[in-house]
Amino acid sequence: MPRYKLTLEYDGAPFAGWQRQADQPSVQERVETAVEALTGVFSHVQGAGRTDAGVHALAQVAHVDLAREWDEFRLREALNHHLRPAPVAVLAVEKVDGEFHARFSATERLYLYRIVNRRPPLTFERGTAWKVRNPLDVKAMREGAAHLVGHHDFTTFRSSMCQAKSPVKTVDEISVQRDGDKITVHVRARSFLHNQVRSFVGTLERVGAGAWAPGDVKAALEACDRAACGPVAPPDGLYLAEVRYASVVGAAPQT
Amino acid sequence: MPRYKLTLEYDGAPFAGWQRQADQPSVQERVETAVEALTGVFSHVQGAGRTDAGVHALAQVAHVDLAREWDEFRLREALNHHLRPAPVAVLAVEKVDGEFHARFSATERLYLYRIVNRRPPLTFERGTAWKVRNPLDVKAMREGAAHLVGHHDFTTFRSSMCQAKSPVKTVDEISVQRDGDKITVHVRARSFLHNQVRSFVGTLERVGAGAWAPGDVKAALEACDRAACGPVAPPDGLYLAEVRYASVVGAAPQT
Repeated sequence: MPRYKLTLEYDGAPFAGWQRQADQPSVQERVETAVEALTGVFSHVQGAGRTDAGVHALAQVAHVDLAREWDEFRLREALNHHLRPAPVAVLAVEKVDGEFHARFSATERLYLYRIVNRRPPLTFERGTAWKVRNPLDVKAMREGAAHLVGHHDFTTFRSSMCQAKSPVKTVDEISVQRDGDKITVHVRARSFLHNQVRSFVGTLERVGAGAWAPGDVKAALEACDRAACGPVAPPDGLYLAEVRYASVVGAAPQT
Repeated sequence: MPRYKLTLEYDGAPFAGWQRQADQPSVQERVETAVEALTGVFSHVQGAGRTDAGVHALAQVAHVDLAREWDEFRLREALNHHLRPAPVAVLAVEKVDGEFHARFSATERLYLYRIVNRRPPLTFERGTAWKVRNPLDVKAMREGAAHLVGHHDFTTFRSSMCQAKSPVKTVDEISVQRDGDKITVHVRARSFLHNQVRSFVGTLERVGAGAWAPGDVKAALEACDRAACGPVAPPDGLYLAEVRYASVVGAAPQT
């Protein structure tokens, strides 16, 4: 059966997360429903990252095996037709070989987190950013973030619900950028623990607010204790921004 | 009575425009209702620009006269409290002298128009941008736009509902920028005719799509005929981005 890689954008607000659940709407179910409406057959859609309730994606990657060959352009158009009116869009479709696995072939994931640092309520960014009322010191946030980069035991920054076998991960990069009242945190790693980015951002917000010194982040990390974490940032501001794969795994180049 | 200048951000989607109407929700009415809820007295709120139904503002300016003096910070907080849950936020409050008039003192207005140039449906930008499916040539759009800059009779680009006495205006600047699949058109002028920016953008879209040559914009302008205009772009992508005033009119500087 031919395998297709799907690149998906979605507003996570109306969903209980990526993963299919018995009694709540999920992005995975919505995409599987679109595939079934198109092909007449249920096909499992495997995502690269299991985004939580309310978490968004600019470029989630998934794969699906279909009974027959599809032209990539037509498949994208048809899936988008069947996804309406959900805020889920297929940005790209690519035929890949059977070795490709959206989750297990991924070599790098990028998340971004959007903060709007102002007192007035949000209008356009409602549900798609975290409004932080008190002025944040981005330089201090960067200093705090530097302690989180590298190969560490991230027990402190891991949800108690996390199913990963080990709390040890390598964070390759964290950047904190300000543009007016908008602050964006980028985090890059091969893979993440459950709630890791939101735990990072909630902790860095405390640093930016001056409640924590940048060095307190190091102490929290070294404590290897969930109780040492700052508050977990809300899902509203979190986006799965990119999933990268080794080029050898991908399909033939498209023109 | 002390006069206050309000800088307002709003998502225009749920409103029939800025201007108060008998039977439909308007931004003006929403702000006047918040003022009345706060002060107990109806006060007229005068806006700088009468944005149409579905048109947004990043920084609409309005003024209102209140019975007593208010601390600017507290007035902003209180109005935002009373504006909830409408997608309208007071970004800034400034006490100004009685000569200041949001509409008549304005020396320059900036509008921006957001296009997302792609085939997949919009998710995050739904209602806040215009999706154009066919690839647009931004260079051609710029060439077309250049014909619209300057002092002209803009009858072609003016709604038949326009109440302005003269169709002659001076457009100081039009820029067209692309960032990935996002195209932003900025237009700057002292004042605008009704539907002028949307008429410009709808026409420039035709140029970008290759249906019109850039020089056709010049011919349309010179025709001074509404029928020569391209289709009017939808309100979704239009934002009143800034209103400027001569500094002598403004209040004392804030710290």
